[in-house]
Amino acid sequence: MRTYLDCIPCFFRQGLEAVRMATRDEKKHRKVLLEIAKVLPEFPLSSTPPEMGRIIHRIIRQFTNSSDPYREIKNKHNEVALKLYPELKEKVKKAKDPLLMAIKVAIAGNVIDLGANSKVNIKEEVERTLRQDFAIFDYEKFKRALKNSDKILYIADNAGEVVFDRILIENLKKKTIYVVRDKPIINDATIDDALFCKIDKVAEIISSGCDAPGTIVNDCSEEFIKHYSTAKLIISKGQGNYESLSEDKKPIFFLLKAKCSVIARDLKCSPGDIVLKSQI
Amino acid sequence: MRTYLDCIPCFFRQGLEAVRMATRDEKKHRKVLLEIAKVLPEFPLSSTPPEMGRIIHRIIRQFTNSSDPYREIKNKHNEVALKLYPELKEKVKKAKDPLLMAIKVAIAGNVIDLGANSKVNIKEEVERTLRQDFAIFDYEKFKRALKNSDKILYIADNAGEVVFDRILIENLKKKTIYVVRDKPIINDATIDDALFCKIDKVAEIISSGCDAPGTIVNDCSEEFIKHYSTAKLIISKGQGNYESLSEDKKPIFFLLKAKCSVIARDLKCSPGDIVLKSQI
Repeated sequence: MRTYLDCIPCFFRQGLEAVRMATRDEKKHRKVLLEIAKVLPEFPLSSTPPEMGRIIHRIIRQFTNSSDPYREIKNKHNEVALKLYPELKEKVKKAKDPLLMAIKVAIAGNVIDLGANSKVNIKEEVERTLRQDFAIFDYEKFKRALKNSDKILYIADNAGEVVFDRILIENLKKKTIYVVRDKPIINDATIDDALFCKIDKVAEIISSGCDAPGTIVNDCSEEFIKHYSTAKLIISKGQGNYESLSEDKKPIFFLLKAKCSVIARDLKCSPGDIVLKSQI
Repeated sequence: MRTYLDCIPCFFRQGLEAVRMATRDEKKHRKVLLEIAKVLPEFPLSSTPPEMGRIIHRIIRQFTNSSDPYREIKNKHNEVALKLYPELKEKVKKAKDPLLMAIKVAIAGNVIDLGANSKVNIKEEVERTLRQDFAIFDYEKFKRALKNSDKILYIADNAGEVVFDRILIENLKKKTIYVVRDKPIINDATIDDALFCKIDKVAEIISSGCDAPGTIVNDCSEEFIKHYSTAKLIISKGQGNYESLSEDKKPIFFLLKAKCSVIARDLKCSPGDIVLKSQI
């Protein structure tokens, strides 16, 4: 997905939020915003938002020497999510269609990052998402792809959400490669989060080789690209991965909650909608 | 009020919204955002947000030749508000404390600009505001100041809202000078709006001499400053006027709805709260 002009105010908002996580020094906060303003003219709108996200977080690292400002938040999200695991697992088990409920659980996990800045009650927000109907629902295609695949490439999004992914992986019952970001970026899941949430019990964990808040294939590792080129079923979680992969003609299923109006417009749905979208 | 770093993303958001009102040319939209990014380093945080608002709208005028992009929206708001006039007038008449209800009506008029971009039902939003309790409520002081003043300086905010101001002015029963912006800026009220909403029947209309989305006293006309220096009761409507006058030691009463978290923090209240705040 290209960058829309509406993303620009959001770059500043995200940059400010992230640098505040890294330091309390208001002068550094301002420096980061001015540096974003400085690089903006060189950033083409044909690039994807995660490419700008990566630039912003490089700026933050440069001005603050903090390589992982969201570490504390990520730990908290992992812990909250692990506490929800038993009851979500039970909900899936009791559901009429456990696979479908597991998909919904995986999408619901995507709301966990709302908890970072607002007083959203994570459990309530998850429950609300589980009651939602899909705005885009390529479920039959998904089941066919699942049946015909012996290996699944599962591209993760945020910390915390990893626990919800684990529930879906446990219901897919196929060999799964779980892909996390190469280095800390915003609250995206890295290998530490995947291990903390015990993904290694159900999947092989690899890094994408990319440190953007998305998956910029050209910058990914050979190992990732090998899996990505040959996989018959790719699950892509969340907005950042959608933004960077939405124009690739690959057997991708996007599982996400549309959190902003730009993504919603691109997907032709409404903000807040949940989506299971087949790419091909 | 100083500019907070949180205002910076908002400057870009407001600039984008305004240039989209002026032209459909996406290249110009981008140019305006890049120009805002360019002037940002020179803008000191000690300045008030309306000072940046003025710069942004000068940039928009420069790139689009549109001197009044919100004209259509303002006309619509004036018309919607005039339709609400009879029932609001009736509500005030029937209220236990008509003056207090008229103050609430004047504040409720401040929500009318929400209608510009979202599908908010203006009537519902007004009704909801009328049911709210005040977060800051210097009503006794207000009544004392009103009793001791033979002339009121009333500094207006948005088009449409003017009709709601008229209802309050009709209940103040004092000679009133109604101050509007000197030139069109966002959806702020100008002389045209004041006349359309028939403020001339109940008050003398003057321009502040200032074309910012607020009242930057140093840039105001001699006529305004004369009234401002001598008035025993000044009513200041909305956020922009609060942002530019909140540090002046004058007999000002701020009537507003806190529409963003920055203003709310500055006022020590919550976003969405309504406020009747005495400055001295």
